[in-house]
Amino acid sequence: MAKELPVSPLAPAGFPAMPAIAGVRLAATMSGERYKGRSDLTLISLAPGTTVAGVFTRSATASAPVLWCREALHHDTPCALVVNAGNANAFTGAIGRDAVRRTAEAAASLVGGSPAGVFVASTGVIGEALSVDKIEAALPGLHGDLADDSWEAAARAIMTTDTYPKGCTRQATVGGVTVTLNGFAKGSGMIAPDMATMLAFVFTDAAIPGRALQAMLATANSRSFNSITVDSDTSTSDSLLVFATGQAARADQAASSKTLYRDFRGALEGLLMDLAQQVVRDGEGAQKFITINVSGAASVKSARRIGLAVGNSPLVKTAIAGEDANWGRIVMAVGKAGEEADRDRMRIAIGGVLIAENGVAHPDYDEAMVMPHMKGREIVIDVDVGVGNGRATVWSCDLTHGYIDINADYRS
Amino acid sequence: MAKELPVSPLAPAGFPAMPAIAGVRLAATMSGERYKGRSDLTLISLAPGTTVAGVFTRSATASAPVLWCREALHHDTPCALVVNAGNANAFTGAIGRDAVRRTAEAAASLVGGSPAGVFVASTGVIGEALSVDKIEAALPGLHGDLADDSWEAAARAIMTTDTYPKGCTRQATVGGVTVTLNGFAKGSGMIAPDMATMLAFVFTDAAIPGRALQAMLATANSRSFNSITVDSDTSTSDSLLVFATGQAARADQAASSKTLYRDFRGALEGLLMDLAQQVVRDGEGAQKFITINVSGAASVKSARRIGLAVGNSPLVKTAIAGEDANWGRIVMAVGKAGEEADRDRMRIAIGGVLIAENGVAHPDYDEAMVMPHMKGREIVIDVDVGVGNGRATVWSCDLTHGYIDINADYRS
Repeated sequence: MAKELPVSPLAPAGFPAMPAIAGVRLAATMSGERYKGRSDLTLISLAPGTTVAGVFTRSATASAPVLWCREALHHDTPCALVVNAGNANAFTGAIGRDAVRRTAEAAASLVGGSPAGVFVASTGVIGEALSVDKIEAALPGLHGDLADDSWEAAARAIMTTDTYPKGCTRQATVGGVTVTLNGFAKGSGMIAPDMATMLAFVFTDAAIPGRALQAMLATANSRSFNSITVDSDTSTSDSLLVFATGQAARADQAASSKTLYRDFRGALEGLLMDLAQQVVRDGEGAQKFITINVSGAASVKSARRIGLAVGNSPLVKTAIAGEDANWGRIVMAVGKAGEEADRDRMRIAIGGVLIAENGVAHPDYDEAMVMPHMKGREIVIDVDVGVGNGRATVWSCDLTHGYIDINADYRS
Repeated sequence: MAKELPVSPLAPAGFPAMPAIAGVRLAATMSGERYKGRSDLTLISLAPGTTVAGVFTRSATASAPVLWCREALHHDTPCALVVNAGNANAFTGAIGRDAVRRTAEAAASLVGGSPAGVFVASTGVIGEALSVDKIEAALPGLHGDLADDSWEAAARAIMTTDTYPKGCTRQATVGGVTVTLNGFAKGSGMIAPDMATMLAFVFTDAAIPGRALQAMLATANSRSFNSITVDSDTSTSDSLLVFATGQAARADQAASSKTLYRDFRGALEGLLMDLAQQVVRDGEGAQKFITINVSGAASVKSARRIGLAVGNSPLVKTAIAGEDANWGRIVMAVGKAGEEADRDRMRIAIGGVLIAENGVAHPDYDEAMVMPHMKGREIVIDVDVGVGNGRATVWSCDLTHGYIDINADYRS
């Protein structure tokens, strides 16, 4: 379980330098709840006046913390975020609900806020009771350690089967004022519910009302975390939260909100895409990063579904693992997506090499032309399905023996 | 590509003895279209008066033979079936359509029927032109070899990555007359479009109008071939055809059609379930056969979808490969199915051992109790989702290194 995995060959060079965000302080520690010898508990305090937006798993078996956070979005202003790694506190019934409540109460009393304003996220094994005593015991020490520069420590403490911490920082201007966005994430199966799940947290000093933040997050999420896949499985615990402290210099609110947030919206989307792609690059057993550009679909939504059908297909993913430009499997995956596609107008290219168009193999196509691309780490597939103007990009990774090794290992 | 795979450890003891069916004669040969040294072309002649029913892939990129057969269902009475293995004749444009037409014309002139009454099925590589010359050249020899006992030869000649031929025979009574049903099938990925796909053909001497046969087939198919999965991928070529020659002694048609066909309906469903399970037992790389019984769902359809979500989950399938009773992954898969489920009333058992109920782990559950079952070849999962009376059973197999080996190998 705690077996050391080598860092993914698709990992970025290192964790980025992240500036302080006024109103956000972080600390991480070893609670001993499940892991030994590594940090697994994170406390983040949020200044009064912070606004929040969030999106969560659509699972019908969502975890206790997810249910708690959905409520919290509609209550108090946030005062803290607590994250534990190793135990998902999912499928734990009334005991699980109590554990979240006790965690929130402990954190609230330390930071001086309401328990309803404490957001909680948990990732790890499903169906085991959380040792909330250990979390309560560790929180006061964490509170004493809060600092404005502990971003990498926090990003590391939320990891489970991740092989590297995932962070990203961006700047934007809102009404003439420069603001910062910092984010970090974890996840290495799209989800592997006993040890992994997808969590992402973003913090900014911009002043943005919760409702506007939620609208921006929904759009940015569909183009980022909802456009990636590792293994098509959906966690009980997936959570993406954005907190805006409003501590940057006051922006000029004269511009219409559409114009006012244009730059921020772009920065948020760019940051989420960066984090989402880092999750795919850490996909369990991944050796190749796959970009699937779909065009000519009936709508953007249809294009995304077609892209996910390609990105989720075990046969496409194993072909890429085998460095095989097996475009017949791409045809199959487009066909099974349940979306409109014109078989006789389809166009497929891999690595920029045109392979098929108008529903047949291109007469000049020679597999040797695309082999150098297939041998690389970054695979690009372009598919035009020939029915409309809908476009979307989806990111995935290959399916390798490493995935089987990680997931077929007995837990204990 | 032509690498010999060992016979699946889940295979039945042998191919069943299949009696003759009056009005059906079969022959198989080596056409040399793609494979060397093994039979790959099958001709089956059907007596005048035969009726037919069929269901096909829902793929938007269906193959040329699938499009041809959909038309043929609405035209003439069937006179022949031609099946080739090695080339799917899919994504081949106008050339592909011509190849099917020429195949049908050649077979029709031999058996003395209309080309529109010739059914054609192809399985194998996608996107390559079919060498129809070789098929035309081989058909006259096949016609001379037609015999009423070549069932196993035909079942072998339609194989691609299958490790054993799949056949089944049943008897039923229709209006006091005993009739026979013979069927054979191929498939070893749910589909692996460059070498495998799902084809199944059933023949009976019962006299059943095409419309009644189609209605029975639709129901039986949803409980058999639409309730299995190997890898969630859907072929461009999946075809299931039932031919009824009507050559058994004339049945007493006095009974209402509902009563008249009751026994036949049961036999057809049993036969299709047997063939469908044989396909799963030959799943690429499969080491364990998984039965998923879902109850307490909002409807039968909902239960089937939940079962397929469990059966398709790479994380459930890898856990079973690792002999890990990882029930948290079953919770996850139920949650992601997009169907109604009551998290706090869910009940899960593996191998008859109660693991969780009312949304939490059972206090008496000990993993050691289920370990002997996990080490076996036949895994049974029972899930009650606690919302209604819908029940369904789905069959799947585990996801192993063997699947990656077979599908990540370079084609040539």
